[in-house]
Amino acid sequence: MLVSELETPALLIDLDIMERNLERVATYAREHGLRLRPHTKTHKTPELARKQLDLGAAGLAVAKTTEAEVMLEAHPDDMLVAYPVLGQQKLERLIRVAQATQVTVALDSDQAACGLSAAAVRAGVTIGVLTEVDVGLHRVGVKPAQLLALVRAVCALPGLRWEGVTFYPGHIKALDDAGLAAIDQLAVDVPAIITQLKAEGFEPRIVSGGSTPALFHSHRIPMLNEIRPGTYIFNDRNTVECGACAWDDCAVSILTTVVSTAVDHQMVLDGGSKTFSSDRLSTGGDALFGRIVEAPAARFHKMNEEHAYVDIGGGKPSAFRVGDRVRVIPNHVCVAVNLHERLYGVRNGAVETVWEVKGRGKLW
Amino acid sequence: MLVSELETPALLIDLDIMERNLERVATYAREHGLRLRPHTKTHKTPELARKQLDLGAAGLAVAKTTEAEVMLEAHPDDMLVAYPVLGQQKLERLIRVAQATQVTVALDSDQAACGLSAAAVRAGVTIGVLTEVDVGLHRVGVKPAQLLALVRAVCALPGLRWEGVTFYPGHIKALDDAGLAAIDQLAVDVPAIITQLKAEGFEPRIVSGGSTPALFHSHRIPMLNEIRPGTYIFNDRNTVECGACAWDDCAVSILTTVVSTAVDHQMVLDGGSKTFSSDRLSTGGDALFGRIVEAPAARFHKMNEEHAYVDIGGGKPSAFRVGDRVRVIPNHVCVAVNLHERLYGVRNGAVETVWEVKGRGKLW
Repeated sequence: MLVSELETPALLIDLDIMERNLERVATYAREHGLRLRPHTKTHKTPELARKQLDLGAAGLAVAKTTEAEVMLEAHPDDMLVAYPVLGQQKLERLIRVAQATQVTVALDSDQAACGLSAAAVRAGVTIGVLTEVDVGLHRVGVKPAQLLALVRAVCALPGLRWEGVTFYPGHIKALDDAGLAAIDQLAVDVPAIITQLKAEGFEPRIVSGGSTPALFHSHRIPMLNEIRPGTYIFNDRNTVECGACAWDDCAVSILTTVVSTAVDHQMVLDGGSKTFSSDRLSTGGDALFGRIVEAPAARFHKMNEEHAYVDIGGGKPSAFRVGDRVRVIPNHVCVAVNLHERLYGVRNGAVETVWEVKGRGKLW
Repeated sequence: MLVSELETPALLIDLDIMERNLERVATYAREHGLRLRPHTKTHKTPELARKQLDLGAAGLAVAKTTEAEVMLEAHPDDMLVAYPVLGQQKLERLIRVAQATQVTVALDSDQAACGLSAAAVRAGVTIGVLTEVDVGLHRVGVKPAQLLALVRAVCALPGLRWEGVTFYPGHIKALDDAGLAAIDQLAVDVPAIITQLKAEGFEPRIVSGGSTPALFHSHRIPMLNEIRPGTYIFNDRNTVECGACAWDDCAVSILTTVVSTAVDHQMVLDGGSKTFSSDRLSTGGDALFGRIVEAPAARFHKMNEEHAYVDIGGGKPSAFRVGDRVRVIPNHVCVAVNLHERLYGVRNGAVETVWEVKGRGKLW
């Protein structure tokens, strides 16, 4: 099937670019001796997770228990649930995943650790734990001063195997001066945190961190030995705007049709918050919702559920007609993929592969 | 099953409130002689569409062709696709829907009308058309001065039956002074537009309009004889904040679990942009993402894909512990429902019904 035969909206993945993106990060991780555990939240597709493993990834990361179930289909040797697992059914299902492959859970509370321990003991399995520390995002993770107590608590619980420390420097939004300074600070803080643990006799096997903007700076953080990038497989407007890649590195675009040009200097595309998500740019740099590949100067400035409002410029008459098709690079690919049932892998104008987004809607 | 046994996040529908909401609008429409064609984009669930029909709705409205296919399961006598249908597969599938029930399409361009006409003629069916006019939102819809030409074009095309005029006053964001003034303006503009058509010999059978904030003011628009409300079945934070309902009228809430309290004065809930959507309040009134039922003063001020950041107040220590469960009324229920596979219909603390969101992911 040709791309021109697809109905819209359709989420396209440029396979040449995706393959190059996968290679680039696999090479970076290998060259710097970093364990690569790609976060599958971006693609939610076991076939793509398998590609990541085949290129040398040590394991997979997922956000939720039911995503872990889906990702078993990729046959990973190792799965990180990068989220505390709370709830009886979740724990029971996580245990079943742990009976199929090695499972590690990231957590930051005694409650999460105790629940996990009890479930592991009941089933006679051992679950790995990464204790999460807050390095500046202030989302989850204990303060560095409280990390030792959490590690002690985890180590004292049966059924758990303390694996090390995890953090997510999501406060680094871009590779601007502030972002680069924050990376420098991490390069001081992270080894200090780990050294303190070691001084107390706790030797982490894994120190897992990194974020999309800071991905290719990961080797500059001493003692960090694992990265968990997700977005790099596709990239998006956020990744470009934060300075971590170029437009040519964006494998994702959403094919749309112009459905109305009734309002002067405007075209309306057949997608909105149910197609792209309503995520703003993470840097807060502008208030647009995506980049129109065929008209980079056009401003996709507003959306409703099924309508994209694109200002095509004040002075000149519209170059677009109803029925024309344009591609949109979304702000945030992870939430956009989650709205689609299928990804269309394209090369040279043809649809080469169709992947079902099997992890879509796996909310817990 | 008890609500307390559900894993989180889970989208709950309070059945008592939903039934009252359905009754209220059915009664309003009946008392004012308005044709009610509920927009099913809010619930995307044929069983709920059937309830709307059983309460007297004249038909259903959908946004997309594949949603229309799903809604055939509700056995409506009449289906409005409130969106121009462009694309060969879409048209072919729309025709099949039209072979099962009466179909009307809203459109604003010659291109959309011509494509629809050709498809209808090929299949030997007749498709209804509502010509869309812009009354102030500046999204789709021709200018009032261009409406006559569009109506003439539609009437001249074979296979189409011009049914009347549609508009969507989405520029009315709230029932504040500006909103009430805009409703007053509609009460002048709409009859003027229709009168002009009539003067040219075009008698619309249907004049379809209205929006959520203005819903219960619809009877004040002369010549309007159809409304297409969607949100009223569940309501949400937008509906309350725009002044169209009270908190007690919100049938929807998303049950979540507190997964971290590691950061002072903050709790993190196990839902984010993949659970609630990242829609801001439509009035722009604040930058919050939902209302915490158990702590209305708490501020849900930030989200990532799977994390809700809730500021629980500066001065006092946290009243919430990891593992506690709280309910969140989302800003915009239509986009939230679209992220969930199932709706849990609850009454008196028990799950009475589970509906599959069959229209979820129907993007075209």
